[in-house]
Amino acid sequence: MKTFLMPVHRALPAYVPGTHEESGNVIRLNTNESPYPPSPEVLGAIASESSKLNFYNDPDCTVLIEALSAHLGVGTANILAGNGSDQILQLAFLAFADGDNPVTLPDVTYSYYDLFAALYGIPLRRIKLEPDFSMNPAAWQSAEGMLVFPNPNAPTGLALQRSEIEGMLQAHPDQVVLVDEAYVDFGAETAVPLIRQYPNLLVVRTFSKSGSLAGIRLGYAVGSESLIADLAKVRNAVDLYGVNRLAQAAGTAACRHWTYYEENCRRIVDARRETTEGLRALGFTVTDSLGNFVFVRPARISASDLQKRLMDRGILVRHFKTERTNDWLRITIGTMDEMKKLLDACREILNGQEECP
Amino acid sequence: MKTFLMPVHRALPAYVPGTHEESGNVIRLNTNESPYPPSPEVLGAIASESSKLNFYNDPDCTVLIEALSAHLGVGTANILAGNGSDQILQLAFLAFADGDNPVTLPDVTYSYYDLFAALYGIPLRRIKLEPDFSMNPAAWQSAEGMLVFPNPNAPTGLALQRSEIEGMLQAHPDQVVLVDEAYVDFGAETAVPLIRQYPNLLVVRTFSKSGSLAGIRLGYAVGSESLIADLAKVRNAVDLYGVNRLAQAAGTAACRHWTYYEENCRRIVDARRETTEGLRALGFTVTDSLGNFVFVRPARISASDLQKRLMDRGILVRHFKTERTNDWLRITIGTMDEMKKLLDACREILNGQEECP
Repeated sequence: MKTFLMPVHRALPAYVPGTHEESGNVIRLNTNESPYPPSPEVLGAIASESSKLNFYNDPDCTVLIEALSAHLGVGTANILAGNGSDQILQLAFLAFADGDNPVTLPDVTYSYYDLFAALYGIPLRRIKLEPDFSMNPAAWQSAEGMLVFPNPNAPTGLALQRSEIEGMLQAHPDQVVLVDEAYVDFGAETAVPLIRQYPNLLVVRTFSKSGSLAGIRLGYAVGSESLIADLAKVRNAVDLYGVNRLAQAAGTAACRHWTYYEENCRRIVDARRETTEGLRALGFTVTDSLGNFVFVRPARISASDLQKRLMDRGILVRHFKTERTNDWLRITIGTMDEMKKLLDACREILNGQEECP
Repeated sequence: MKTFLMPVHRALPAYVPGTHEESGNVIRLNTNESPYPPSPEVLGAIASESSKLNFYNDPDCTVLIEALSAHLGVGTANILAGNGSDQILQLAFLAFADGDNPVTLPDVTYSYYDLFAALYGIPLRRIKLEPDFSMNPAAWQSAEGMLVFPNPNAPTGLALQRSEIEGMLQAHPDQVVLVDEAYVDFGAETAVPLIRQYPNLLVVRTFSKSGSLAGIRLGYAVGSESLIADLAKVRNAVDLYGVNRLAQAAGTAACRHWTYYEENCRRIVDARRETTEGLRALGFTVTDSLGNFVFVRPARISASDLQKRLMDRGILVRHFKTERTNDWLRITIGTMDEMKKLLDACREILNGQEECP
């Protein structure tokens, strides 16, 4: 069939839809979602905003930005909201890198960065994590272009301390350092206070994990006024209307009543500890994750086998088939009950292995 | 202050926030919003979907696409949903035009097209509308690249008939013809049935006007399977997560219970007729608009003066300061009550003029 598509786009990979399983019997531990619904205040804010949907949203997200400013203790000019942190990341790649200005990132990390780089023709430089997957700031001395890493890193769960990030900011004053804090609320130190001293620091955050709003698409960037103004300039060219009304209302209510989410984070941290201990008791290797997931090398069974057997029992977990992660699984932390079911399932699968060699 | 922004983006225009006035006393006739809130079914769908927001949305919008398919009488493979029709338009510009393949559009039309062209470095060719702002298909014989026009056109409100669009599709079989039907539900003929015969037709639609969902950002494209697949390919590279959960649920409910919106469209058409007659009775020139707005050349007062005086009375209308539209105002059709207030205000302003020369 004739195509009207411009030649440059024809090489784009065909889209493969992900597993989108909503059956009540499935335990979804594969996408790092929160097992807890949004707070009553958020549900109320959405309901009351719904009747105004015939009117356009505020493209500047004024009320949301004010709520975020109070929540984070930074100025309103230090924040830009977007349709999920994925949009913010994409804008940062577009604004602060190009074909001649690369992005440097860890060799094991969030796979979407590759997609944004491919989209804009940005060369990537990869710095190897240590054998235990920890990130060694000294190895980043020669990092080129924009430095990008999640803290804690995904899928490893390992985090740098704020002082280590500060050292990197000092070592690279003429380069943007983008710290993706998607998972920071589960135990790592935030770099946000450093934006006052370091105009090259861009912190990217999302409501998708600790904020229980993955389905509404809401994220934001925190940085110096200059970095945020540059990012906003690009955002306004790419996406003028920005964040929809309901996401603005939901994020505002979540910031103003954050205790509910702190409590959920505590539960997830507790369940993570139980899960880590339980999996280690089975002989599995488990990193000291500070995210809402654990990174696990199973014992006596391959990662891909364990993933398949868990799927047979209605438990979805994530397997990244790259050289360094092929022996590992990333398992999202759900409720304590869900994690008990996971541990029971792992135990049964291992026992079954021994009985039928 | 030092900037980290890539040089290519530094020339982007600084952002000027639009009037975002939510005061209860203001009558907003400046952004072509619907004066009617979403239907009870839509509000219910949003409320019930809210408690699942901790889970990611379906990037393929499966349920919404099925509802649209039933609503429009086309196949599911003929539809792609996006974050507002603005995103769909942007994707179409990116997919089907580039620096060497221009876009041809009317000289008086929706101003966002310019923005998308600027973003991607796409040259624009403009075909002059007739002196009465009507569009003459014969003038488009030599149109280069992708043909883009709204039907009805904005801000004129004038529409082509389906047979005229069919003629253009036949005259340009090797070019994409994009018909932006943002305002089609207020009286113009849709081109959707033509997608079966013409693989080069892309119809773009939105829930922002007749669907009372401007604040949720939901639009879609309808076209041949091949055009839609090409557009989806680009969409998936640019915006993987796509339309948020609440927009999907709202759009689905709106399609399934469209009678409420048909009734609102009828009310708007009635109010448009009253407004047109009322303004003509004041000596104003008013086009035969088929949109949810009228395009008006005031008599005995300049367009910009009338806009300012209306604003003093809390009524917002739109003035486009281009050569051909400088004497005209675009006035959104609100409720019958709002339009009576507009007509009264115009009458008073004109009388005031005569009393104090």
